[in-house]
Amino acid sequence: LSLSRAETKKLKALQTKKGRRLNGCFLAEGVRLLEEAHRFGSRPEQVYWSPSLLSERGARLLDSFRKAGAKATEVSASELSRFGGAETSQGIAAVFTTPLLNSSELALTPHRKVLLCENISDPGNLGTLIRSAAAFDFNPVVLVGACAEPFSPKVVRASAGAIFGVTIAEALGDQFVAGARQSGLKLIATGAQGAHDMNRAFGSDSDGGIVLAIGSEADGLSETIVKAADMMVGIAHTDRVESLNAAIAGSILMKACYDRKTQRKL
Amino acid sequence: LSLSRAETKKLKALQTKKGRRLNGCFLAEGVRLLEEAHRFGSRPEQVYWSPSLLSERGARLLDSFRKAGAKATEVSASELSRFGGAETSQGIAAVFTTPLLNSSELALTPHRKVLLCENISDPGNLGTLIRSAAAFDFNPVVLVGACAEPFSPKVVRASAGAIFGVTIAEALGDQFVAGARQSGLKLIATGAQGAHDMNRAFGSDSDGGIVLAIGSEADGLSETIVKAADMMVGIAHTDRVESLNAAIAGSILMKACYDRKTQRKL
Repeated sequence: LSLSRAETKKLKALQTKKGRRLNGCFLAEGVRLLEEAHRFGSRPEQVYWSPSLLSERGARLLDSFRKAGAKATEVSASELSRFGGAETSQGIAAVFTTPLLNSSELALTPHRKVLLCENISDPGNLGTLIRSAAAFDFNPVVLVGACAEPFSPKVVRASAGAIFGVTIAEALGDQFVAGARQSGLKLIATGAQGAHDMNRAFGSDSDGGIVLAIGSEADGLSETIVKAADMMVGIAHTDRVESLNAAIAGSILMKACYDRKTQRKL
Repeated sequence: LSLSRAETKKLKALQTKKGRRLNGCFLAEGVRLLEEAHRFGSRPEQVYWSPSLLSERGARLLDSFRKAGAKATEVSASELSRFGGAETSQGIAAVFTTPLLNSSELALTPHRKVLLCENISDPGNLGTLIRSAAAFDFNPVVLVGACAEPFSPKVVRASAGAIFGVTIAEALGDQFVAGARQSGLKLIATGAQGAHDMNRAFGSDSDGGIVLAIGSEADGLSETIVKAADMMVGIAHTDRVESLNAAIAGSILMKACYDRKTQRKL
Protein backbone atom coordinates (compact mmCIF):
# COMPACT_ATOMS: atom_id res chain seq x y z
CA LEU A 1 0.00 0.00 0.00
CA SER A 2 2.82 2.35 -0.65
CA LEU A 3 4.51 3.65 -3.74
CA SER A 4 8.01 2.75 -4.82
CA ARG A 5 10.60 5.49 -4.67
CA ALA A 6 10.74 5.66 -8.45
CA GLU A 7 6.99 6.05 -8.70
CA THR A 8 6.88 8.74 -6.00
CA LYS A 9 9.62 10.58 -7.82
CA LYS A 10 7.79 10.41 -11.13
CA LEU A 11 4.51 11.61 -9.64
CA LYS A 12 6.28 14.48 -7.99
CA ALA A 13 7.91 15.36 -11.29
CA LEU A 14 4.50 15.48 -12.99
CA GLN A 15 3.61 18.48 -10.82
CA THR A 16 5.97 20.60 -12.90
CA LYS A 17 5.94 21.55 -16.56
CA LYS A 18 9.46 20.26 -17.07
CA GLY A 19 8.63 16.95 -15.42
CA ARG A 20 5.56 16.48 -17.59
CA ARG A 21 7.58 17.18 -20.71
CA LEU A 22 10.45 14.87 -19.76
CA ASN A 23 8.11 12.02 -18.83
CA GLY A 24 5.72 12.61 -21.75
CA CYS A 25 2.71 12.24 -19.50
CA PHE A 26 0.44 14.13 -17.12
CA LEU A 27 -1.74 13.45 -14.08
CA ALA A 28 -5.48 14.09 -14.05
CA GLU A 29 -7.70 13.63 -11.03
CA GLY A 30 -11.28 13.75 -9.89
CA VAL A 31 -14.24 11.58 -10.80
CA ARG A 32 -15.99 13.87 -13.30
CA LEU A 33 -12.84 14.69 -15.21
CA LEU A 34 -11.72 11.06 -15.42
CA GLU A 35 -15.21 9.97 -16.45
CA GLU A 36 -14.83 12.28 -19.42
CA ALA A 37 -11.43 10.74 -20.21
CA HIS A 38 -13.05 7.29 -20.13
CA ARG A 39 -16.00 8.43 -22.24
CA PHE A 40 -13.59 9.66 -24.91
CA GLY A 41 -11.74 6.33 -24.85
CA SER A 42 -8.53 7.63 -23.25
CA ARG A 43 -6.86 4.75 -21.44
CA PRO A 44 -4.59 5.79 -18.57
CA GLU A 45 -1.11 4.32 -18.24
CA GLN A 46 -1.76 3.99 -14.55
CA VAL A 47 -4.61 4.63 -12.11
CA TYR A 48 -4.10 5.44 -8.41
CA TRP A 49 -6.97 5.06 -6.02
CA SER A 50 -7.63 5.24 -2.34
CA PRO A 51 -10.62 3.26 -1.04
CA SER A 52 -11.35 5.55 1.93
CA LEU A 53 -11.89 8.54 -0.37
CA LEU A 54 -13.65 6.84 -3.28
CA SER A 55 -17.40 7.28 -3.83
CA GLU A 56 -19.55 4.57 -5.44
CA ARG A 57 -19.44 6.50 -8.67
CA GLY A 58 -15.65 6.62 -8.37
CA ALA A 59 -15.55 2.87 -7.79
CA ARG A 60 -17.56 2.25 -10.97
CA LEU A 61 -15.11 4.42 -12.89
CA LEU A 62 -12.17 2.47 -11.45
CA ASP A 63 -13.83 -0.74 -12.64
CA SER A 64 -14.27 0.68 -16.14
CA PHE A 65 -10.61 1.65 -16.33
CA ARG A 66 -9.59 -1.80 -15.13
CA LYS A 67 -11.79 -3.49 -17.70
CA ALA A 68 -10.17 -1.31 -20.34
CA GLY A 69 -6.83 -2.76 -19.28
CA ALA A 70 -5.41 0.02 -17.13
CA LYS A 71 -3.09 -0.87 -14.28
CA ALA A 72 -4.57 0.27 -10.95
CA THR A 73 -2.57 0.77 -7.76
CA GLU A 74 -4.08 1.27 -4.33
CA VAL A 75 -2.45 4.05 -2.33
CA SER A 76 -3.13 5.73 0.99
CA ALA A 77 -5.31 8.82 1.18
CA SER A 78 -2.35 10.93 2.26
CA GLU A 79 -0.22 9.77 -0.66
CA LEU A 80 -2.97 10.57 -3.13
CA SER A 81 -3.49 14.01 -1.65
CA ARG A 82 0.23 14.70 -1.68
CA PHE A 83 0.90 14.24 -5.36
CA GLY A 84 -2.45 15.44 -6.61
CA GLY A 85 -3.22 19.12 -6.95
CA ALA A 86 -6.88 19.10 -5.84
CA GLU A 87 -7.83 20.67 -2.52
CA THR A 88 -9.92 17.66 -1.61
CA SER A 89 -9.05 14.41 -3.34
CA GLN A 90 -11.91 12.30 -4.66
CA GLY A 91 -9.86 9.16 -4.25
CA ILE A 92 -8.83 8.65 -7.87
CA ALA A 93 -6.11 10.03 -10.11
CA ALA A 94 -4.62 8.72 -13.34
CA VAL A 95 -1.55 9.22 -15.47
CA PHE A 96 -2.02 9.59 -19.23
CA THR A 97 0.46 9.78 -22.08
CA THR A 98 0.46 13.34 -23.38
CA PRO A 99 -1.28 13.12 -26.76
CA LEU A 100 0.39 16.19 -28.21
CA LEU A 101 0.98 16.20 -31.96
CA ASN A 102 3.25 18.36 -34.05
CA SER A 103 2.50 19.94 -37.43
CA SER A 104 3.64 17.02 -39.53
CA GLU A 105 1.53 14.50 -37.59
CA LEU A 106 -1.59 16.54 -38.16
CA ALA A 107 -3.82 15.31 -40.97
CA LEU A 108 -5.68 18.34 -42.26
CA THR A 109 -8.65 16.88 -44.09
CA PRO A 110 -10.54 19.35 -46.26
CA HIS A 111 -13.76 19.53 -44.26
CA ARG A 112 -12.22 20.12 -40.91
CA LYS A 113 -12.93 23.05 -38.66
CA VAL A 114 -9.68 23.90 -36.91
CA LEU A 115 -9.17 26.30 -33.98
CA LEU A 116 -5.81 28.04 -34.07
CA CYS A 117 -4.76 29.59 -30.73
CA GLU A 118 -1.87 32.04 -30.88
CA ASN A 119 -0.26 33.22 -27.62
CA ILE A 120 -3.23 32.24 -25.45
CA SER A 121 -1.18 32.28 -22.27
CA ASP A 122 -3.95 32.16 -19.66
CA PRO A 123 -4.60 28.50 -18.75
CA GLY A 124 -8.26 29.15 -17.96
CA ASN A 125 -8.84 30.73 -21.36
CA LEU A 126 -7.02 27.93 -23.20
CA GLY A 127 -8.95 25.21 -21.36
CA THR A 128 -12.23 26.99 -21.96
CA LEU A 129 -11.47 27.36 -25.67
CA ILE A 130 -10.74 23.62 -25.90
CA ARG A 131 -14.07 22.91 -24.17
CA SER A 132 -15.93 25.19 -26.58
CA ALA A 133 -14.08 23.63 -29.53
CA ALA A 134 -15.48 20.23 -28.52
CA ALA A 135 -18.92 21.78 -28.04
CA PHE A 136 -18.98 23.39 -31.48
CA ASP A 137 -17.25 20.72 -33.51
CA PHE A 138 -13.82 22.29 -33.93
CA ASN A 139 -11.06 19.70 -34.00
CA PRO A 140 -8.02 19.84 -33.88
CA VAL A 141 -6.96 22.75 -31.69
CA VAL A 142 -3.56 23.98 -32.89
CA LEU A 143 -1.32 25.98 -30.56
CA VAL A 144 1.08 28.54 -31.97
CA GLY A 145 3.47 30.89 -30.14
CA ALA A 146 3.52 31.22 -26.36
CA CYS A 147 0.38 29.40 -25.31
CA ALA A 148 -0.24 27.94 -21.87
CA GLU A 149 0.97 24.34 -21.49
CA PRO A 150 -2.05 22.35 -22.70
CA PHE A 151 -1.72 19.42 -20.28
CA SER A 152 -1.10 21.48 -17.16
CA PRO A 153 -3.63 20.89 -14.35
CA LYS A 154 -5.31 24.29 -14.84
CA VAL A 155 -5.90 23.81 -18.56
CA VAL A 156 -7.10 20.24 -18.11
CA ARG A 157 -9.53 21.37 -15.39
CA ALA A 158 -10.82 24.37 -17.38
CA SER A 159 -11.43 22.07 -20.35
CA ALA A 160 -13.80 20.06 -18.12
CA GLY A 161 -12.38 16.91 -19.71
CA ALA A 162 -12.83 18.06 -23.31
CA ILE A 163 -9.04 17.90 -23.68
CA PHE A 164 -9.44 14.10 -23.88
CA GLY A 165 -11.82 14.47 -26.83
CA VAL A 166 -10.00 17.01 -28.97
CA THR A 167 -6.72 16.57 -30.84
CA ILE A 168 -4.16 19.09 -29.57
CA ALA A 169 -1.18 20.00 -31.73
CA GLU A 170 1.70 22.44 -31.45
CA ALA A 171 2.96 24.12 -34.59
CA LEU A 172 4.94 26.99 -36.01
CA GLY A 173 2.61 29.68 -37.32
CA ASP A 174 3.97 30.02 -40.85
CA GLN A 175 4.41 26.27 -41.38
CA PHE A 176 0.90 25.53 -40.20
CA VAL A 177 -0.64 28.27 -42.31
CA ALA A 178 1.15 26.96 -45.42
CA GLY A 179 -0.06 23.42 -44.73
CA ALA A 180 -3.62 24.55 -44.12
CA ARG A 181 -3.59 26.44 -47.41
CA GLN A 182 -2.36 23.35 -49.28
CA SER A 183 -5.21 21.36 -47.73
CA GLY A 184 -7.71 23.90 -49.06
CA LEU A 185 -8.71 25.31 -45.68
CA LYS A 186 -9.87 28.92 -45.47
CA LEU A 187 -8.02 30.96 -42.85
CA ILE A 188 -10.26 33.27 -40.84
CA ALA A 189 -8.47 35.67 -38.50
CA THR A 190 -10.27 37.40 -35.66
CA GLY A 191 -9.68 40.99 -34.66
CA ALA A 192 -11.47 44.16 -33.60
CA GLN A 193 -11.19 45.54 -37.13
CA GLY A 194 -12.74 42.44 -38.75
CA ALA A 195 -16.04 42.34 -40.61
CA HIS A 196 -19.12 41.34 -38.65
CA ASP A 197 -20.67 39.34 -41.45
CA MET A 198 -20.83 35.82 -40.04
CA ASN A 199 -22.60 34.49 -43.11
CA ARG A 200 -19.70 35.49 -45.32
CA ALA A 201 -17.20 33.97 -42.90
CA PHE A 202 -19.03 30.77 -42.06
CA GLY A 203 -21.78 30.45 -44.66
CA SER A 204 -22.47 27.34 -46.69
CA ASP A 205 -20.07 28.50 -49.44
CA SER A 206 -17.17 27.75 -47.13
CA ASP A 207 -17.82 24.05 -46.71
CA GLY A 208 -14.23 23.33 -47.65
CA GLY A 209 -13.19 23.63 -44.02
CA ILE A 210 -11.79 26.53 -42.08
CA VAL A 211 -9.10 27.54 -39.65
CA LEU A 212 -10.38 30.07 -37.11
CA ALA A 213 -7.44 31.95 -35.57
CA ILE A 214 -7.67 33.60 -32.12
CA GLY A 215 -4.87 35.79 -30.79
CA SER A 216 -3.93 37.10 -27.37
CA GLU A 217 -6.10 39.78 -25.81
CA ALA A 218 -3.19 42.13 -25.29
CA ASP A 219 -1.71 42.02 -28.76
CA GLY A 220 -4.13 40.26 -31.11
CA LEU A 221 -2.85 37.97 -33.84
CA SER A 222 0.66 38.18 -35.25
CA GLU A 223 1.34 39.69 -38.67
CA THR A 224 2.18 36.22 -40.01
CA ILE A 225 -1.39 35.06 -39.41
CA VAL A 226 -3.14 38.31 -40.32
CA LYS A 227 -1.28 38.63 -43.64
CA ALA A 228 -2.03 35.05 -44.61
CA ALA A 229 -5.72 35.27 -43.69
CA ASP A 230 -8.45 34.92 -46.31
CA MET A 231 -10.64 37.20 -44.27
CA MET A 232 -10.84 39.01 -40.93
CA VAL A 233 -13.88 38.63 -38.74
CA GLY A 234 -14.84 40.60 -35.64
CA ILE A 235 -17.62 40.64 -33.09
CA ALA A 236 -19.89 43.69 -32.87
CA HIS A 237 -20.24 45.07 -29.34
CA THR A 238 -20.82 48.39 -27.57
CA ASP A 239 -17.90 50.76 -27.08
CA ARG A 240 -18.17 50.35 -23.31
CA VAL A 241 -15.39 47.76 -23.50
CA GLU A 242 -12.28 47.78 -25.65
CA SER A 243 -12.41 44.09 -26.38
CA LEU A 244 -13.86 40.77 -25.28
CA ASN A 245 -12.12 38.06 -23.30
CA ALA A 246 -10.24 35.81 -25.77
CA ALA A 247 -12.14 32.65 -24.78
CA ILE A 248 -15.46 34.49 -25.10
CA ALA A 249 -14.58 35.89 -28.54
CA GLY A 250 -13.37 32.51 -29.81
CA SER A 251 -16.42 30.69 -28.46
CA ILE A 252 -18.92 33.18 -29.93
CA LEU A 253 -17.30 32.74 -33.34
CA MET A 254 -17.15 28.93 -33.09
CA LYS A 255 -20.83 28.95 -32.12
CA ALA A 256 -21.69 31.21 -35.09
CA CYS A 257 -19.85 28.78 -37.37
CA TYR A 258 -21.50 25.72 -35.80
CA ASP A 259 -24.98 27.21 -36.26
CA ARG A 260 -24.34 27.83 -39.95
CA LYS A 261 -22.76 24.46 -40.65
CA THR A 262 -25.64 22.68 -38.95
CA GLN A 263 -28.14 24.89 -40.81
CA ARG A 264 -29.60 26.00 -37.52
CA LYS A 265 -32.08 28.80 -37.73
CA LEU A 266 -30.94 31.56 -35.42
CA LEU B 1 7.08 59.32 1.67
CA SER B 2 5.63 56.78 3.97
CA LEU B 3 2.14 55.77 4.98
CA SER B 4 0.63 56.40 8.36
CA ARG B 5 -0.03 53.38 10.55
CA ALA B 6 -3.77 53.77 10.09
CA GLU B 7 -3.43 53.89 6.31
CA THR B 8 -1.14 50.85 6.21
CA LYS B 9 -3.62 48.98 8.36
CA LYS B 10 -6.52 49.89 6.09
CA LEU B 11 -4.68 48.90 2.92
CA LYS B 12 -3.73 45.60 4.49
CA ALA B 13 -7.35 45.05 5.47
CA LEU B 14 -8.44 45.61 1.85
CA GLN B 15 -6.56 42.45 0.88
CA THR B 16 -9.27 40.38 2.58
CA LYS B 17 -12.95 40.01 1.84
CA LYS B 18 -13.90 40.92 5.40
CA GLY B 19 -11.72 44.03 5.34
CA ARG B 20 -13.24 45.18 2.05
CA ARG B 21 -16.73 44.73 3.45
CA LEU B 22 -16.02 46.51 6.74
CA ASN B 23 -14.34 49.44 5.01
CA GLY B 24 -16.84 49.60 2.15
CA CYS B 25 -14.09 50.01 -0.40
CA PHE B 26 -11.62 48.07 -2.54
CA LEU B 27 -8.20 48.54 -4.10
CA ALA B 28 -7.61 48.36 -7.85
CA GLU B 29 -4.23 48.64 -9.49
CA GLY B 30 -2.51 48.78 -12.84
CA VAL B 31 -2.61 51.41 -15.57
CA ARG B 32 -5.06 49.77 -17.99
CA LEU B 33 -7.57 48.86 -15.30
CA LEU B 34 -7.49 52.31 -13.72
CA GLU B 35 -7.77 53.98 -17.13
CA GLU B 36 -11.04 52.13 -17.54
CA ALA B 37 -12.19 53.34 -14.12
CA HIS B 38 -11.40 56.89 -15.18
CA ARG B 39 -13.09 56.48 -18.56
CA PHE B 40 -16.27 55.36 -16.78
CA GLY B 41 -16.09 58.39 -14.47
CA SER B 42 -15.24 56.47 -11.29
CA ARG B 43 -13.38 58.81 -8.95
CA PRO B 44 -11.08 57.07 -6.45
CA GLU B 45 -11.14 58.03 -2.79
CA GLN B 46 -7.41 57.88 -2.82
CA VAL B 47 -4.62 57.23 -5.34
CA TYR B 48 -1.22 55.80 -4.40
CA TRP B 49 1.66 56.16 -6.81
CA SER B 50 5.35 55.49 -6.91
CA PRO B 51 7.39 57.62 -9.35
CA SER B 52 10.11 55.02 -9.94
CA LEU B 53 7.56 52.50 -11.27
CA LEU B 54 5.24 54.81 -13.19
CA SER B 55 5.28 54.96 -17.01
CA GLU B 56 4.41 58.13 -18.95
CA ARG B 57 0.99 56.70 -19.61
CA GLY B 58 0.63 56.08 -15.88
CA ALA B 59 1.68 59.66 -15.13
CA ARG B 60 -1.02 61.01 -17.48
CA LEU B 61 -3.58 58.86 -15.70
CA LEU B 62 -2.41 60.17 -12.31
CA ASP B 63 -2.89 63.73 -13.64
CA SER B 64 -6.41 62.93 -14.80
CA PHE B 65 -7.34 61.53 -11.39
CA ARG B 66 -5.90 64.62 -9.70
CA LYS B 67 -7.83 66.94 -12.00
CA ALA B 68 -10.97 65.00 -11.14
CA GLY B 69 -10.30 65.85 -7.49
CA ALA B 70 -8.79 62.59 -6.20
CA LYS B 71 -6.27 62.76 -3.38
CA ALA B 72 -2.92 61.32 -4.49
CA THR B 73 -0.22 60.10 -2.13
CA GLU B 74 3.33 59.27 -3.18
CA VAL B 75 4.62 56.03 -1.68
CA SER B 76 7.76 53.96 -2.09
CA ALA B 77 7.92 51.17 -4.64
CA SER B 78 8.19 48.57 -1.91
CA GLU B 79 5.12 49.89 -0.07
CA LEU B 80 3.07 49.84 -3.27
CA SER B 81 4.18 46.29 -4.04
CA ARG B 82 3.43 45.15 -0.52
CA PHE B 83 -0.22 46.10 -0.32
CA GLY B 84 -1.03 45.52 -3.98
CA GLY B 85 -1.71 42.06 -5.32
CA ALA B 86 0.00 42.35 -8.72
CA GLU B 87 3.19 40.43 -9.38
CA THR B 88 4.82 43.50 -10.86
CA SER B 89 3.41 46.85 -9.78
CA GLN B 90 2.89 49.48 -12.48
CA GLY B 91 3.35 52.24 -9.93
CA ILE B 92 -0.28 53.17 -9.41
CA ALA B 93 -3.12 51.84 -7.28
CA ALA B 94 -6.35 53.41 -6.13
CA VAL B 95 -9.02 52.88 -3.50
CA PHE B 96 -12.66 53.14 -4.60
CA THR B 97 -15.88 53.08 -2.62
CA THR B 98 -17.63 49.78 -3.34
CA PRO B 99 -20.59 50.72 -5.52
CA LEU B 100 -22.71 47.73 -4.55
CA LEU B 101 -26.48 48.21 -4.54
CA ASN B 102 -29.17 46.11 -2.95
CA SER B 103 -32.55 45.17 -4.42
CA SER B 104 -34.44 48.20 -3.18
CA GLU B 105 -31.87 50.65 -4.58
CA LEU B 106 -32.14 49.11 -8.02
CA ALA B 107 -34.39 51.00 -10.42
CA LEU B 108 -35.71 48.47 -12.89
CA THR B 109 -36.81 50.55 -15.85
CA PRO B 110 -38.89 48.67 -18.40
CA HIS B 111 -36.42 48.64 -21.28
CA ARG B 112 -33.48 47.35 -19.36
CA LYS B 113 -31.53 44.23 -20.14
CA VAL B 114 -30.48 42.72 -16.83
CA LEU B 115 -28.01 39.86 -16.25
CA LEU B 116 -28.89 37.75 -13.24
CA CYS B 117 -26.01 35.59 -11.94
CA GLU B 118 -26.96 32.87 -9.49
CA ASN B 119 -24.21 31.01 -7.61
CA ILE B 120 -21.45 32.01 -10.03
CA SER B 121 -18.70 31.24 -7.56
CA ASP B 122 -15.68 31.31 -9.85
CA PRO B 123 -14.19 34.84 -9.81
CA GLY B 124 -12.88 34.55 -13.36
CA ASN B 125 -16.30 33.58 -14.67
CA LEU B 126 -18.06 36.37 -12.78
CA GLY B 127 -15.58 39.01 -13.96
CA THR B 128 -15.83 37.77 -17.54
CA LEU B 129 -19.64 37.86 -17.40
CA ILE B 130 -19.51 41.47 -16.17
CA ARG B 131 -17.16 42.32 -19.06
CA SER B 132 -19.49 40.69 -21.58
CA ALA B 133 -22.49 42.43 -19.99
CA ALA B 134 -20.84 45.79 -20.69
CA ALA B 135 -19.98 44.63 -24.21
CA PHE B 136 -23.52 43.57 -25.03
CA ASP B 137 -25.47 46.28 -23.26
CA PHE B 138 -26.65 44.36 -20.20
CA ASN B 139 -26.86 46.57 -17.11
CA PRO B 140 -27.28 46.05 -14.15
CA VAL B 141 -25.70 42.73 -13.21
CA VAL B 142 -27.61 41.28 -10.27
CA LEU B 143 -25.97 38.68 -8.01
CA VAL B 144 -28.08 36.09 -6.26
CA GLY B 145 -27.01 33.21 -3.99
CA ALA B 146 -23.37 32.32 -3.40
CA CYS B 147 -21.56 34.34 -6.06
CA ALA B 148 -17.90 35.33 -5.93
CA GLU B 149 -17.29 38.64 -4.17
CA PRO B 150 -17.70 41.15 -7.01
CA PHE B 151 -15.01 43.63 -5.90
CA SER B 152 -12.33 41.06 -5.12
CA PRO B 153 -9.09 41.53 -7.08
CA LYS B 154 -9.70 38.48 -9.29
CA VAL B 155 -13.18 39.57 -10.35
CA VAL B 156 -12.07 43.16 -10.94
CA ARG B 157 -9.16 41.93 -13.07
CA ALA B 158 -11.26 39.46 -15.07
CA SER B 159 -13.77 42.25 -15.78
CA ALA B 160 -10.92 44.19 -17.47
CA GLY B 161 -12.33 47.33 -15.85
CA ALA B 162 -15.91 46.81 -17.01
CA ILE B 163 -16.89 46.54 -13.34
CA PHE B 164 -16.53 50.34 -13.19
CA GLY B 165 -19.06 50.74 -16.02
CA VAL B 166 -21.80 48.34 -14.94
CA THR B 167 -24.11 48.64 -11.94
CA ILE B 168 -23.63 45.66 -9.62
CA ALA B 169 -26.36 44.71 -7.16
CA GLU B 170 -26.90 41.92 -4.66
CA ALA B 171 -30.40 40.59 -4.16
CA LEU B 172 -32.48 37.73 -2.85
CA GLY B 173 -33.73 35.58 -5.74
CA ASP B 174 -37.43 35.61 -5.00
CA GLN B 175 -37.55 39.30 -4.09
CA PHE B 176 -35.71 40.30 -7.23
CA VAL B 177 -37.86 38.11 -9.45
CA ALA B 178 -41.03 39.64 -7.97
CA GLY B 179 -39.70 43.16 -8.53
CA ALA B 180 -38.65 42.42 -12.10
CA ARG B 181 -42.11 41.06 -12.85
CA GLN B 182 -43.76 44.20 -11.47
CA SER B 183 -41.50 46.27 -13.71
CA GLY B 184 -42.70 44.29 -16.73
CA LEU B 185 -39.41 42.53 -17.41
CA LYS B 186 -39.45 39.11 -19.07
CA LEU B 187 -37.48 36.48 -17.14
CA ILE B 188 -35.43 34.19 -19.38
CA ALA B 189 -33.75 31.27 -17.63
CA THR B 190 -30.87 29.37 -19.21
CA GLY B 191 -30.47 25.62 -19.02
CA ALA B 192 -29.53 22.59 -21.08
CA GLN B 193 -33.20 21.71 -21.56
CA GLY B 194 -34.11 25.19 -22.85
CA ALA B 195 -35.35 26.00 -26.34
CA HIS B 196 -32.79 27.06 -28.91
CA ASP B 197 -35.02 29.65 -30.53
CA MET B 198 -33.17 32.90 -29.95
CA ASN B 199 -35.70 34.89 -31.94
CA ARG B 200 -38.46 33.87 -29.58
CA ALA B 201 -36.33 34.68 -26.56
CA PHE B 202 -34.80 37.92 -27.75
CA GLY B 203 -36.84 38.97 -30.79
CA SER B 204 -38.33 42.41 -31.27
CA ASP B 205 -41.55 41.35 -29.53
CA SER B 206 -39.68 41.38 -26.24
CA ASP B 207 -38.71 45.04 -26.29
CA GLY B 208 -40.13 45.45 -22.81
CA GLY B 209 -36.81 44.50 -21.30
CA ILE B 210 -35.51 41.18 -20.08
CA VAL B 211 -33.73 39.49 -17.22
CA LEU B 212 -31.34 36.80 -18.46
CA ALA B 213 -30.59 34.36 -15.63
CA ILE B 214 -27.38 32.24 -15.58
CA GLY B 215 -26.84 29.55 -12.98
CA SER B 216 -23.83 27.64 -11.73
CA GLU B 217 -22.27 25.04 -14.00
CA ALA B 218 -22.57 22.29 -11.45
CA ASP B 219 -26.21 22.72 -10.50
CA GLY B 220 -27.85 25.12 -12.95
CA LEU B 221 -30.45 27.62 -11.78
CA SER B 222 -32.47 27.17 -8.59
CA GLU B 223 -36.11 26.14 -8.68
CA THR B 224 -37.12 29.63 -7.55
CA ILE B 225 -35.78 31.12 -10.78
CA VAL B 226 -36.78 28.29 -13.10
CA LYS B 227 -40.38 28.23 -11.83
CA ALA B 228 -40.74 31.98 -12.17
CA ALA B 229 -39.22 32.08 -15.68
CA ASP B 230 -41.29 33.16 -18.70
CA MET B 231 -39.20 30.88 -20.84
CA MET B 232 -36.13 28.64 -20.80
CA VAL B 233 -33.42 29.08 -23.39
CA GLY B 234 -30.48 26.80 -24.16
CA ILE B 235 -27.51 26.70 -26.49
CA ALA B 236 -27.29 23.97 -29.11
CA HIS B 237 -23.96 22.15 -29.14
CA THR B 238 -22.53 18.71 -29.94
CA ASP B 239 -22.84 15.93 -27.37
CA ARG B 240 -19.05 15.81 -27.01
CA VAL B 241 -19.39 18.01 -23.93
CA GLU B 242 -22.02 17.91 -21.21
CA SER B 243 -22.26 21.67 -20.89
CA LEU B 244 -20.54 24.94 -21.66
CA ASN B 245 -18.56 27.10 -19.26
CA ALA B 246 -21.00 29.44 -17.47
CA ALA B 247 -19.30 32.63 -18.71
CA ILE B 248 -19.29 31.29 -22.26
CA ALA B 249 -22.97 30.33 -22.14
CA GLY B 250 -23.99 33.68 -20.65
CA SER B 251 -21.94 35.64 -23.15
CA ILE B 252 -23.25 33.73 -26.18
CA LEU B 253 -26.82 34.46 -25.06
CA MET B 254 -26.12 38.14 -24.31
CA LYS B 255 -24.56 38.44 -27.76
CA ALA B 256 -27.59 36.78 -29.37
CA CYS B 257 -29.82 39.27 -27.56
CA TYR B 258 -27.61 42.24 -28.50
CA ASP B 259 -27.69 41.30 -32.17
CA ARG B 260 -31.47 41.16 -32.19
CA LYS B 261 -32.01 44.37 -30.24
CA THR B 262 -29.64 46.21 -32.55
CA GLN B 263 -31.33 44.64 -35.57
CA ARG B 264 -28.05 43.23 -36.68
CA LYS B 265 -28.24 40.79 -39.55
CA LEU B 266 -26.53 37.62 -38.50
